[in-house]
Amino acid sequence: MSERATSGLATVRTVGALRLRVADWRAQGHSIALVPTMGALHEGHGTLIDAARRVADRVVVSVFVNPTQFGPNEDFAAYPRDESRDMAFISQRGGDLMFTPEAAEMYPEGFATSVHVAGLTEGLCGAFRPGHFDGVATVVTKLFTQARPDSALFGEKDYQQLCVIRRLVRDLDLGVQVVAVPILREDDGLALSSRNAYLSAEERAIAPVLHRVLTESATHIASGAGAGIKAVLADATGKLIEAGFRAVDYVACVDPETLQPLAAYDPGRGARLLAAAHLGRTRLIDNIAV
Amino acid sequence: MSERATSGLATVRTVGALRLRVADWRAQGHSIALVPTMGALHEGHGTLIDAARRVADRVVVSVFVNPTQFGPNEDFAAYPRDESRDMAFISQRGGDLMFTPEAAEMYPEGFATSVHVAGLTEGLCGAFRPGHFDGVATVVTKLFTQARPDSALFGEKDYQQLCVIRRLVRDLDLGVQVVAVPILREDDGLALSSRNAYLSAEERAIAPVLHRVLTESATHIASGAGAGIKAVLADATGKLIEAGFRAVDYVACVDPETLQPLAAYDPGRGARLLAAAHLGRTRLIDNIAV
Repeated sequence: MSERATSGLATVRTVGALRLRVADWRAQGHSIALVPTMGALHEGHGTLIDAARRVADRVVVSVFVNPTQFGPNEDFAAYPRDESRDMAFISQRGGDLMFTPEAAEMYPEGFATSVHVAGLTEGLCGAFRPGHFDGVATVVTKLFTQARPDSALFGEKDYQQLCVIRRLVRDLDLGVQVVAVPILREDDGLALSSRNAYLSAEERAIAPVLHRVLTESATHIASGAGAGIKAVLADATGKLIEAGFRAVDYVACVDPETLQPLAAYDPGRGARLLAAAHLGRTRLIDNIAV
Repeated sequence: MSERATSGLATVRTVGALRLRVADWRAQGHSIALVPTMGALHEGHGTLIDAARRVADRVVVSVFVNPTQFGPNEDFAAYPRDESRDMAFISQRGGDLMFTPEAAEMYPEGFATSVHVAGLTEGLCGAFRPGHFDGVATVVTKLFTQARPDSALFGEKDYQQLCVIRRLVRDLDLGVQVVAVPILREDDGLALSSRNAYLSAEERAIAPVLHRVLTESATHIASGAGAGIKAVLADATGKLIEAGFRAVDYVACVDPETLQPLAAYDPGRGARLLAAAHLGRTRLIDNIAV
């Protein structure tokens, strides 16, 4: 059952062992929360574990760098991995179990099934990362059917992913309560991300501009004064390039549920402002409520 | 909870009511089998219910004519529906619960998710019914996550569907044991099917030729004598047309698991012979082990 006592944290690597552990907790009447991660855990993940402990009796943290959600030219190989550090982090934060399957456990020989969420996955990051959200939807479906948790915690940092997963859970009747956790930021506004580790000192100094520009743009849009949304977004893109971002995939103002681009701001409905931009070889994303 | 005592059979129409009933059985320590159907129940479905009663304590029969697995030019509107007859059939056969959701319960507003099984769905019926197996895979995933049964029963009549569902259950860790039930046939060999009701008297007299030709072809292939597989299949197609079938979608000899076409017969591995052919306006399918 590949269980270890290192760091005092129980670790399982197979679906069978995960299910035994979860069934045992169920038999004791415990509720279960799942925090799906790709490891390289930071304080942002910490707030997910904290939130999980508030909504459930037992907290499972999955650590799996899912190959199917990376494109061929993306950073799958380079993605930071440090299992013993992650294990210590989860243990110290009060998680109860780490689930770290090998790729062969998640995608055995002959694996052929994928889950697709139409609509929500087409714009924003979906337009720049073909197949990414199919990979996310499929692995999250699997994690949910494997662990059968009562609730699962996701960060608002990956806002489009959060919307896709909410839809997926409703559509496939997965019976999991999806809990969104606000973005944790550095003092200078940079959203915490495992990919921030890729940034050089110079890039790190530029990175907070992403959040600053989103904040300014949201204020402009919410005020309803002056330029229309389109002009605000074009201006934001210009500011990012000017600050030193190499390329801007998008700056978009969308409906907070459907993710459809908004031509005008309706305070009653709200809006979400999202951006993805490249700083050197690192792709950063961020978003903010208008 | 839309439950009725008609025919002495409990009936639920919502996922919530289904889950309450199943949870109650679970709490009593009962195992649960699901028999997914599109209604228009016949003795073939009867053998599925019989088999379900052998493998589980409680038997749920779902009756749902799933719109997403019909093509635009197929028989969704005409598909036979008779709920009170189905209810009486399930009750008399010893089923414990009928689950008959409306389409809006299965596919609420904004529904956007689909499940795709690559490979297995591409040939045979998949080539002639685009989207059919996505519809099947999605609805079966939903039925499994809704009812969370221990086992589910499927007829070998829909052999490709059976293979797709086996793959799907493994790939998405649905935790359901898939049990295959052999084809039930009329005395003259015609496989039982709800669609046999479409046949005119004249067509009904021709229909058993499908099974007869498959049986002869299987014998030829298994004997290894004479013509190769390709010639046997071409000959079978000719015989069907000659007997009065309007068109033959395919006669194929495939690996029983991968459904890949076989160039030669390997008795150790086995083979499956499958056919789909049109008799008037009715599309019939059948298959047989070599």
